[in-house]
Amino acid sequence: MHTIDLSKYEYRTDLVIEEHLEELTEKDIQKKQYKIGNIQVEEMDLSKEGSKKIKKKEGLYRTISFQDITDKDHYQEVEKVFIKVMKELLQSSNIKEDASTLIVGLGNEHSTPDALGPKVVEQVLVTSHLFELGEVEKTYRKTSAFSPDVTGSTGIETGKLIKGAIHAINPDFLIVIDALKATNTERLTKTIQLSNTGITPGSGVGNNREELSYETLKIPVIVIGVPTIVDLVTIVTDTFQYIYKHFSYKLDNLDNASMKLIPESLQNYLDYPDTLTKEEKEEILGSIGNLEEEEVKQLMSEVLVPINYNLMVTPKEIDFTIKRLSTLIGQGINKSLHIHFNPTKRA
Amino acid sequence: MHTIDLSKYEYRTDLVIEEHLEELTEKDIQKKQYKIGNIQVEEMDLSKEGSKKIKKKEGLYRTISFQDITDKDHYQEVEKVFIKVMKELLQSSNIKEDASTLIVGLGNEHSTPDALGPKVVEQVLVTSHLFELGEVEKTYRKTSAFSPDVTGSTGIETGKLIKGAIHAINPDFLIVIDALKATNTERLTKTIQLSNTGITPGSGVGNNREELSYETLKIPVIVIGVPTIVDLVTIVTDTFQYIYKHFSYKLDNLDNASMKLIPESLQNYLDYPDTLTKEEKEEILGSIGNLEEEEVKQLMSEVLVPINYNLMVTPKEIDFTIKRLSTLIGQGINKSLHIHFNPTKRA
Amino acid sequence: MHTIDLSKYEYRTDLVIEEHLEELTEKDIQKKQYKIGNIQVEEMDLSKEGSKKIKKKEGLYRTISFQDITDKDHYQEVEKVFIKVMKELLQSSNIKEDASTLIVGLGNEHSTPDALGPKVVEQVLVTSHLFELGEVEKTYRKTSAFSPDVTGSTGIETGKLIKGAIHAINPDFLIVIDALKATNTERLTKTIQLSNTGITPGSGVGNNREELSYETLKIPVIVIGVPTIVDLVTIVTDTFQYIYKHFSYKLDNLDNASMKLIPESLQNYLDYPDTLTKEEKEEILGSIGNLEEEEVKQLMSEVLVPINYNLMVTPKEIDFTIKRLSTLIGQGINKSLHIHFNPTKRA
Amino acid sequence: MHTIDLSKYEYRTDLVIEEHLEELTEKDIQKKQYKIGNIQVEEMDLSKEGSKKIKKKEGLYRTISFQDITDKDHYQEVEKVFIKVMKELLQSSNIKEDASTLIVGLGNEHSTPDALGPKVVEQVLVTSHLFELGEVEKTYRKTSAFSPDVTGSTGIETGKLIKGAIHAINPDFLIVIDALKATNTERLTKTIQLSNTGITPGSGVGNNREELSYETLKIPVIVIGVPTIVDLVTIVTDTFQYIYKHFSYKLDNLDNASMKLIPESLQNYLDYPDTLTKEEKEEILGSIGNLEEEEVKQLMSEVLVPINYNLMVTPKEIDFTIKRLSTLIGQGINKSLHIHFNPTKRA
Repeated sequence: MHTIDLSKYEYRTDLVIEEHLEELTEKDIQKKQYKIGNIQVEEMDLSKEGSKKIKKKEGLYRTISFQDITDKDHYQEVEKVFIKVMKELLQSSNIKEDASTLIVGLGNEHSTPDALGPKVVEQVLVTSHLFELGEVEKTYRKTSAFSPDVTGSTGIETGKLIKGAIHAINPDFLIVIDALKATNTERLTKTIQLSNTGITPGSGVGNNREELSYETLKIPVIVIGVPTIVDLVTIVTDTFQYIYKHFSYKLDNLDNASMKLIPESLQNYLDYPDTLTKEEKEEILGSIGNLEEEEVKQLMSEVLVPINYNLMVTPKEIDFTIKRLSTLIGQGINKSLHIHFNPTKRA
Repeated sequence: MHTIDLSKYEYRTDLVIEEHLEELTEKDIQKKQYKIGNIQVEEMDLSKEGSKKIKKKEGLYRTISFQDITDKDHYQEVEKVFIKVMKELLQSSNIKEDASTLIVGLGNEHSTPDALGPKVVEQVLVTSHLFELGEVEKTYRKTSAFSPDVTGSTGIETGKLIKGAIHAINPDFLIVIDALKATNTERLTKTIQLSNTGITPGSGVGNNREELSYETLKIPVIVIGVPTIVDLVTIVTDTFQYIYKHFSYKLDNLDNASMKLIPESLQNYLDYPDTLTKEEKEEILGSIGNLEEEEVKQLMSEVLVPINYNLMVTPKEIDFTIKRLSTLIGQGINKSLHIHFNPTKRA
Repeated sequence: MHTIDLSKYEYRTDLVIEEHLEELTEKDIQKKQYKIGNIQVEEMDLSKEGSKKIKKKEGLYRTISFQDITDKDHYQEVEKVFIKVMKELLQSSNIKEDASTLIVGLGNEHSTPDALGPKVVEQVLVTSHLFELGEVEKTYRKTSAFSPDVTGSTGIETGKLIKGAIHAINPDFLIVIDALKATNTERLTKTIQLSNTGITPGSGVGNNREELSYETLKIPVIVIGVPTIVDLVTIVTDTFQYIYKHFSYKLDNLDNASMKLIPESLQNYLDYPDTLTKEEKEEILGSIGNLEEEEVKQLMSEVLVPINYNLMVTPKEIDFTIKRLSTLIGQGINKSLHIHFNPTKRA
Repeated sequence: MHTIDLSKYEYRTDLVIEEHLEELTEKDIQKKQYKIGNIQVEEMDLSKEGSKKIKKKEGLYRTISFQDITDKDHYQEVEKVFIKVMKELLQSSNIKEDASTLIVGLGNEHSTPDALGPKVVEQVLVTSHLFELGEVEKTYRKTSAFSPDVTGSTGIETGKLIKGAIHAINPDFLIVIDALKATNTERLTKTIQLSNTGITPGSGVGNNREELSYETLKIPVIVIGVPTIVDLVTIVTDTFQYIYKHFSYKLDNLDNASMKLIPESLQNYLDYPDTLTKEEKEEILGSIGNLEEEEVKQLMSEVLVPINYNLMVTPKEIDFTIKRLSTLIGQGINKSLHIHFNPTKRA
């Protein structure tokens, strides 16, 4: 038997809409951005018309961007924003305050960067079995939770297992948590993405992938994802953009006397725009400087894939990051779902 | 909300038939015992008639008893016996060599003595998803595997989740692995029990328990269990029996000169019969000495339960024991199910 | 090579003084008991005179007894009492507010009931390395922490490893945390025991055991222990005492009409005294009823040890209990050691 | 208190000599390369003279390069080569067959890519404590093992803890295992590096770093390392080299008809030399094409460090890789150290 490593197919890419945005009209997409402290929230509502133009599904997309959640204060701020965004998304998706839910954690708990879903499930409060005993106060919703593991470990199409669970308990809506593949290095473990468009948790093998969405299940499907891995093609392509920004900043500030007093390593140019001309880019990066970002990505694939170097990587602190993020999302879900959830009552 | 600790309901008692054996005729039960090295195998086939007389389900019961599997040699002997017994049980249950199976690991992987099922599932080879890709040699069976966790963590009746999975993949038969509550201290982590009678993995709360058996599923259900916990009532009741055996041995060997040369701590009387008279028992243990074993058990419940002292306990080495047993059973299942399973091909 | 299982030697028995108490005068021992809510604190100060009479070391002994720390409120009460007792013990042991400390977690982190020490060490705040960088506020003490593992895993006498660490960093005092063997079933995971008498973490093999105490190290050694295992001899011996109490209660309330209305299983007689006469005991438990508690223990050893049945056991919920206790003790140590420790600043 | 994240300082870079090799004469360095199957071994013996010219320490350097150890057959081949290289290194370092050793696992077992050392220590056979009992056959060496954790968790300079342990047991030589930072993406989890030059396990903070080497300890110090992380500067710099190779291969094979039949993704050019002229490089990569590899690295640091984008990353499969590598190295050490080590005797 030739064992097939399905793991490489299992990651879904992030939920963010960013390509072809310029081609969309106001009828296609509604956008809104705001900041709470240092945390940025981006809202995109993609209409049926917009959905047809780009290949993303119709629905609501939300992205929470932050810098660091190892600091306790910042952690609490991000949690607050998550609860706000989550509650609004539930409401915008017409989910009632007493609607019951099944919370599904996708991924492989034995592979750290893929363990987000199962770890969140460990954090969520489940109440369904208590409702049957008449032991739950009105301020709690009926919740169940379940981690179906990955097809490579069960031999079972993940979507089928989840449909079996839905069939067994008939929830009013679904919440699915998953680790994602970043299409932009900047977002790696620094964004929480939400949408109500559903997800396809299949392994990508064969034709029997099982989409989980309102269309297939007739109940709303909320998805919560965090990019935890990125491939080298993306890293290198992103770096070319940073090279342009770096030189834009440098060239524009060549004669800026005060700038010379700031140590190089503190000159954070990240928000500085790319002001280079076509000629300057070509001077710096040769014929690669002439390529569009998508073309660079294509070229880097041609360079790295044949030599098996398009590694998928994750930050070395991933164990701690997954622990923090899963607690934040798990407790955030609890506080979003139950009116008077009192975390101090659980130890 | 009053959180209800369902964990105390979750353990099923061991699969062994031992009560009322004397009331059964040969038509009711067929028994066979044999030894391979130091390992003892007990086979009991309970007929419909026998099933009605005692409250156990009709079907085949197998028990493998051993002393110690920390020693590598003994471990391998026990594995061999397990494979033999398992293969015979599959055959006696009319399961064909190419029948597909779903392997279910009951229990809570975060509670060591309850983690046997999930740990076995980690060891088993799954092939179903590979069959769909046409990548599997004929010597392999179609296998899937799945750990449904416990109702206290999912909010979902475990039996319902399993039925959902069965519905999703339609296996030809089921294998269920579970940690059990011992009804005899002697069997604690020292026996592997098999049967084809099915199991009820419900939490025991409410009326909606879902039996998994041929009757309810129309496919054979093989159960594999190991007692990993025991309660204090059982420990104390068993000790009374050891007290009788101890004194039987002592009294019968009082004048045995050579006996005096053997240190007390080496005088293993375990296989010595209870030869005490009713009067001797009363002299040693007073009115408790007059009670039948079942009555002693009843009395000890009356003593220990009201003061919350009927603890469920597990041997302190349980982490190592679960690791060894789950590897043995997991690899044993692999070797029983697949004709030419070559463990060296997996790393 | 005959591998020797050292694990059985590694547990130390609990720190409580309870034997021969009646033989001690007020000059020998100072006792005090008080309750805070449902939590009981017992203080015993054993003098040099007292120390000679019984075989316990001179010094201060503190025991905190509680029922349940799975409930958040009760957990917090126990933590408060622990901090109070710990602070007083530090003060009574003449340890200054800015004295530096090395916190040592004894035990094997891969064996759940023995993992208390290493798990506490994971919780404690370490600051020593930050002091060298001049980055620590005055309200923090200089703390280091270290888990030496067990001799069976390292091949090294644990006491020697600890002395090596002490030699390396010269702390002003030592805090040692360890899982203990209960000499009374009632205390199992329900008491935290503290003393300033030191501990001998040796494996008990050979003569090279290394006591860690003021006498050997010239610095105070605070010990914190929790009984997490108990042997069957203790369980059975304790049960005999419960049988007496049970019958005392029953006999004394035979004619108590209202008593008959209370279900048997709710008649908690635990605090009821043993009022049986010698004759009554003999009637109930025969010649065993004539034995002193120590003699019963001796007899049970003679019964259970030769047949290898004196198992060491731990409650089946031990995974959860260890998690809770290690957090409580770890955070309790942090709050006892650092004047303005602000747990919210750590995530 | 400002918590300082020491974790970023803790990784040591790989043990390979590759810079300035061209400046070394035969008196400076002795090199040898050979292949066993697909596994490549590189030996470099750096003399005192050579040591002065480049900044690496005098001594023996060995590198084992392989492709994949998830396949059982290849795994066993790599283990064999490891044992061969390890045994020769012990011999060349004048370590006798009965010399006793302390095996030290550096790193943080709670951070997957840094857990190699502690995980290897879990695999090694320790015998020292058994020698004291006279229970060990002559074919075994006296071994101890110990994982000192990281300074960020203990507050203690790691080197000091190790010296404490050495002081306690006086081993004849030291074996230190550590996870490394790759200076070349190609080596990431694909090489095992050995040397007898010692290591400095300090956190890099302050001046009190404690070198562990023959010079400081007067006993041989064997180091075994595997690169498990790499930073983005290295990834991007390496990619520039692949771009050159890719275009060299493309340009040289433009008219090669048969080449056109091979799919792009299968054209593995990794071993193809860089045949581009200076002009071609400038055409492809502009002024960056003019830079030496070291200058590219410098530029990429200037681009990525100020915006906090020089992430340290690890392959997403790191959990499985660490498990495999630590078993291979641990068992490889056992088989190298003990003459008749029989792994089947351990379970």
